[in-house]
Amino acid sequence: MSQNRPPKKPLPQPEDHPTTTTSTASSGGGGTGMRLIVPLQGIVQGRGGLILGSLIPCALFYFLQFYPKRRRPPSPNPTTTSSSSDLARSASRLNLSTRGSIHVSARGNTIAKPEDSTYYIGLSKVRGDEYDSLENPDGFIQLGLAENRLSLDLIGKWISENLNDSMFGEGNDGLNINGMATYQPFDGLKELKEAIAGFMSRVMGKTQLFDPNQMVLTSGATSALEILCFCLADQGNGLLVPTPYYPGFDRDMRWRTGVELVPVHCRSSDNFMLSVPALDQAYNQARKRGQKIRGVLISNPSNPVGNMLSKDTLYSLVDFAREKNIHIICDEVFAGSTYGNEEFVSMAEVLDSEDFDKDRVHIIYGLSKDLSLPGFRVGVIYSFNENVLAASRKLTRFSSISVPTQRLLIPMIKDERFTQEYISVNRERIRKTHALFVEGLEKMGIECAESKAGLYCWVNMSRLISPYNEKGELELFEKLLDIGKINATPGSACHCIEPGWFRCCFTTLTEADIPVVMERIRKVVDTCNPFCSKHLA
Amino acid sequence: MSQNRPPKKPLPQPEDHPTTTTSTASSGGGGTGMRLIVPLQGIVQGRGGLILGSLIPCALFYFLQFYPKRRRPPSPNPTTTSSSSDLARSASRLNLSTRGSIHVSARGNTIAKPEDSTYYIGLSKVRGDEYDSLENPDGFIQLGLAENRLSLDLIGKWISENLNDSMFGEGNDGLNINGMATYQPFDGLKELKEAIAGFMSRVMGKTQLFDPNQMVLTSGATSALEILCFCLADQGNGLLVPTPYYPGFDRDMRWRTGVELVPVHCRSSDNFMLSVPALDQAYNQARKRGQKIRGVLISNPSNPVGNMLSKDTLYSLVDFAREKNIHIICDEVFAGSTYGNEEFVSMAEVLDSEDFDKDRVHIIYGLSKDLSLPGFRVGVIYSFNENVLAASRKLTRFSSISVPTQRLLIPMIKDERFTQEYISVNRERIRKTHALFVEGLEKMGIECAESKAGLYCWVNMSRLISPYNEKGELELFEKLLDIGKINATPGSACHCIEPGWFRCCFTTLTEADIPVVMERIRKVVDTCNPFCSKHLA
Repeated sequence: MSQNRPPKKPLPQPEDHPTTTTSTASSGGGGTGMRLIVPLQGIVQGRGGLILGSLIPCALFYFLQFYPKRRRPPSPNPTTTSSSSDLARSASRLNLSTRGSIHVSARGNTIAKPEDSTYYIGLSKVRGDEYDSLENPDGFIQLGLAENRLSLDLIGKWISENLNDSMFGEGNDGLNINGMATYQPFDGLKELKEAIAGFMSRVMGKTQLFDPNQMVLTSGATSALEILCFCLADQGNGLLVPTPYYPGFDRDMRWRTGVELVPVHCRSSDNFMLSVPALDQAYNQARKRGQKIRGVLISNPSNPVGNMLSKDTLYSLVDFAREKNIHIICDEVFAGSTYGNEEFVSMAEVLDSEDFDKDRVHIIYGLSKDLSLPGFRVGVIYSFNENVLAASRKLTRFSSISVPTQRLLIPMIKDERFTQEYISVNRERIRKTHALFVEGLEKMGIECAESKAGLYCWVNMSRLISPYNEKGELELFEKLLDIGKINATPGSACHCIEPGWFRCCFTTLTEADIPVVMERIRKVVDTCNPFCSKHLA
Repeated sequence: MSQNRPPKKPLPQPEDHPTTTTSTASSGGGGTGMRLIVPLQGIVQGRGGLILGSLIPCALFYFLQFYPKRRRPPSPNPTTTSSSSDLARSASRLNLSTRGSIHVSARGNTIAKPEDSTYYIGLSKVRGDEYDSLENPDGFIQLGLAENRLSLDLIGKWISENLNDSMFGEGNDGLNINGMATYQPFDGLKELKEAIAGFMSRVMGKTQLFDPNQMVLTSGATSALEILCFCLADQGNGLLVPTPYYPGFDRDMRWRTGVELVPVHCRSSDNFMLSVPALDQAYNQARKRGQKIRGVLISNPSNPVGNMLSKDTLYSLVDFAREKNIHIICDEVFAGSTYGNEEFVSMAEVLDSEDFDKDRVHIIYGLSKDLSLPGFRVGVIYSFNENVLAASRKLTRFSSISVPTQRLLIPMIKDERFTQEYISVNRERIRKTHALFVEGLEKMGIECAESKAGLYCWVNMSRLISPYNEKGELELFEKLLDIGKINATPGSACHCIEPGWFRCCFTTLTEADIPVVMERIRKVVDTCNPFCSKHLA
């Protein structure tokens, strides 16, 4: 078989943003088996495609593996192959035919295969050729990543002024290397939990809303979500998720957990607001299909729409979850990135005023959005359920935050004067950039959903697409990339049921960048069919 | 049902070292269902206990959940329960009976339940009352944690002298906040990979043995192991693991992956050295049971024994893996912590000299042991398989290293003068402490397995136990804890087939601590039965 094997070459390696692109090792590709499997998986489409796409190639692979094996002449003395002597080793090598490259696990294979989400395709397209007003003015403009660079100057200033005090103590007592290099609690230092509990309360405009004892810290909200999902649902169980939703949920909640996300479609006519009757309907349909629903996952403020749930809706959600005896996961990572006059209401606040079982409610938070620190990788599981906390604490062995980073963060987050100022300045900057961005779009006749929070707009480009379906949307996505050199996330990546909506993140832009973005979008608008563009021009 | 529910109290929360103990939130315990499930899981013992222990209580829970539900009077108007109006909300609340506390997933429940491994029981026993020669001379002495504090002074000195240059650039150019706070590749910065590739080569006494392009960085070797396991094996698949093995493998490789570890027993008569015929036998037995074996997991230098595999054995292992078409995972985290005259041979070196498929070989490394930086959480997957690399890179979204820590590490690890000196001074200190520790034990007639590396001894206390079985071993473990106030890891926690062996980590001790440890052990020896102690006195 080794003679018949085609020469090995490395497979093209699709990269998840923000993983690196330097992946072509000299030593090998995936081999025959892999090259067969990958294209086959592309063929299997639609619902159930994931399972079929794994099972069919696996079956084929097994067949290919064992078929030649049976025809292979048997080893004269199989036991010698396991001896450790050099002679036996050489003999065994001569007797063995190489069976072709080894295959990885079915799930590893699913994860390794090329992207099919336009969210990740768009992100990776930008990498390596990103727009910079001075150094790369013709590069791609990244509107696909919810990253806030508007207030990094404030963070940079604080670290510059306080790095030494943070690390060596205010009296310059010397580095506490023992408290930094050695094993520390995997679920986060007590002092950091206390500091973050205070910060979260401040962000949500309350005092002492959060108890550090109900907190588990993880390396980013991404792993917080995954750990929580492991703890709440078993393989094959479902979670209800209102759409449009953050495309990363599909990786965070499904990949390794085997949990299914059941979309609950929201409509533009309600400004994509969560509706409890729709949840109820989706729940009942899932039950009819025989699927066990274990919870509801919401993002509040919503990502990608940017609207917020009212206190009443939160109450209804709690009632719904209690009626069905299911969990609620509230992703509140954008709680501090609001810019309207409306106040954000945390699920913690709702529970604070109620006298019922709280142990079905779990909140996700992190410092990546509200404190602009995605590189620091700090996520929070905040739960009222002791079993979830106990299991999550143990699972942080796989996702703990580096201690030097925790040491640096403790005084920063405890610095009330700094964080208060940061929160208010940052909000004002988001508000201003949002206003400029929306205004620019409006001038072209493009409207956004009403929003009150987040680092993005939810933009209605439905009149630019033709045909009016997912195909038209994807064509516009490609035009935006190819003609406008802009990456925006198509609604279909967010499981939006109405075509033509795009998530555009604006907090990586400077004020001067906004006209450039608008100019590029206009270029794309001009290429759309006359029926569309006349409405917009 | 709510009336019949017993009053809620928080479940006792066992803690994994090193997670924190501050877990008693005011809001709740596991509730009725949980309290039924946990004792039931204790009843189901032996092989298959994990599955049965999950299935039986789940079935029971379902029964309990639905039985009262059918007898509950139906809601007069179920649709009102999902309305968002306040009135409907109150109505729904009145109509709903609380069904009791919600249960977590079966796997979450398994993870949350109290420890049964003496490894973790011992670790948690020490916490909060750890020995300190000055401040807590009667505290527990921790010999259960493979942590090296012998050379922290060197690390502390380097950081103190270079922190500002690391963070602000050598010319004090100012903090590069953009390169620190924003999203960076989840699988590690290119510069850090290059630095670590150099460091690993230096540790193994070679030049450019490792290619940074074949490297994926993770938050600790623990998550590197888990990610690799996900990529190589599917749920229910098995990995062969020579015993005695590091007790953490049972969590790292099994908990979330559902992969099974198949022990391959090594014997004291061979100094617990890996034997390929034993692997072969275990492989065949597993196949007969219908289990699919996907690989071999070895630690080299071995943890807990401290011996190393010869080049010949590594060759045989590669031949065996090729013959069976399975993977090899080499955990080489102690490669730089050798102290004998014998040189460590990395699997990478073996592959470097061979001309066959390398894509079944994967190496685990990290900075926790050889550079004494467990708090920094830096692990490495080094693989020759492009699919494994591609999948692992994507999975680092759940386990990435905080960027400020990476920035601090890059100049440290690139500093060849520093790392060379560190490696040699650290080796000499381990050698010296090891010699003192072994000598102290020998004076009491207690012998250790021959070892050449690692932060621990593998101590033969079999003559101290009575009866000569696991029960006797566990009694000695308890005596060591209760009488000696010493935590050492019993061999049974490492799946050792011969009773009476203990892993004792000595690199958290100062020279002055060693006589204290020996005195405490002697106290325990004196309590053992006369037949035992006369042999030892």
